[in-house]
Amino acid sequence: MLLCDIGNTSYHFLDGKTEYKKYATLFDPSSLHERVYYICVNPQLKNRLRDLKNWIDLSLYTDFSKYYKTIGVDRVAACEAIEDGLIIDAGSAITVDIVKDGVYGGGFIYPGVRAMSQAYKNISSALDYSFNFELDLDKMPKNSQDAISYGYLKTLYSEVVSHNMNIYLTGGFAKEFAKIFKDAKVDEMLIFKGMQKIIKKADLC
Amino acid sequence: MLLCDIGNTSYHFLDGKTEYKKYATLFDPSSLHERVYYICVNPQLKNRLRDLKNWIDLSLYTDFSKYYKTIGVDRVAACEAIEDGLIIDAGSAITVDIVKDGVYGGGFIYPGVRAMSQAYKNISSALDYSFNFELDLDKMPKNSQDAISYGYLKTLYSEVVSHNMNIYLTGGFAKEFAKIFKDAKVDEMLIFKGMQKIIKKADLC
Repeated sequence: MLLCDIGNTSYHFLDGKTEYKKYATLFDPSSLHERVYYICVNPQLKNRLRDLKNWIDLSLYTDFSKYYKTIGVDRVAACEAIEDGLIIDAGSAITVDIVKDGVYGGGFIYPGVRAMSQAYKNISSALDYSFNFELDLDKMPKNSQDAISYGYLKTLYSEVVSHNMNIYLTGGFAKEFAKIFKDAKVDEMLIFKGMQKIIKKADLC
Repeated sequence: MLLCDIGNTSYHFLDGKTEYKKYATLFDPSSLHERVYYICVNPQLKNRLRDLKNWIDLSLYTDFSKYYKTIGVDRVAACEAIEDGLIIDAGSAITVDIVKDGVYGGGFIYPGVRAMSQAYKNISSALDYSFNFELDLDKMPKNSQDAISYGYLKTLYSEVVSHNMNIYLTGGFAKEFAKIFKDAKVDEMLIFKGMQKIIKKADLC
């Protein structure tokens, strides 16, 4: 069974136990002829995939009533994978969602590394630094790189830990963010696990 | 005495007790012939002002040794204005700085409203919402506008209140942020007060 989680920048495949990525701009989905169960948050690609009979859109088999109308299907899939906890999906955007006793508790969206880096750069060339993920979160910064790193990372950290829940980290930047959320469980398969649950519930295979 | 705090987008003047703003792109500083005491974080404008004899750069009279080398002079001026507290200067960037017993305790930089809004929009057109400053900060969101508003505002809030200090709010967006930081003291004159202290210390007039 081939699973695919399509984000704004890449196709993320799981083939049995092997996972790999293809750039959204370079990969041609019609080159695949086997059945692919997918979720997709990219509206342009979603339109294109609608015409391919072997690509099965799992959002059509997902119960959104537990969530909200405009939530990204990737967030739903991640939430379906756990019973209790706070999920940080660190991709182009960083989504933070809460599940309590299998019930969705709401969530928020924070800019991903690239978007936030560009935001600082757009304000002033004096803020054009990469983020320091080795930052000491217990000290208010006294240099420019740490001042923007703290602004990006510590604010997110303070909010997330205030919920006092087990943290699951997934997404392309999970390993970077694990340096900040040291107690988090990194699980890059979380969305695929949720997709498998949706497939099972819907009796698709 | 004419004071001027120059940011990335505007000249902010204080003439006696009257304050007013001019767009950085439209205002010609050589049109003024009286003495102007200024601070400036915009490198291009700073170069231009260097040649105007009646524009006095207060950064030359500021003791940066208490701060750090690359800190913006506007942040220094705001800190000079208080003895104890946490200052949020909400402009193109949002700077957060701490002063304890007159000693600088460090600070961080967070994107301003426009830069952050653009950051979300750049990730996906599905995140192109204005921020809801009336947001209930105690509830994890269940709609897209609140999901990005919470991501922007609650993360900052959680970090700021964790310091448990008196909050001073200044800058062009101070009134918007006062809806989030309900106990903050809004003081749009904070930077000018600091500039007046620097002038007094340096015996400039």
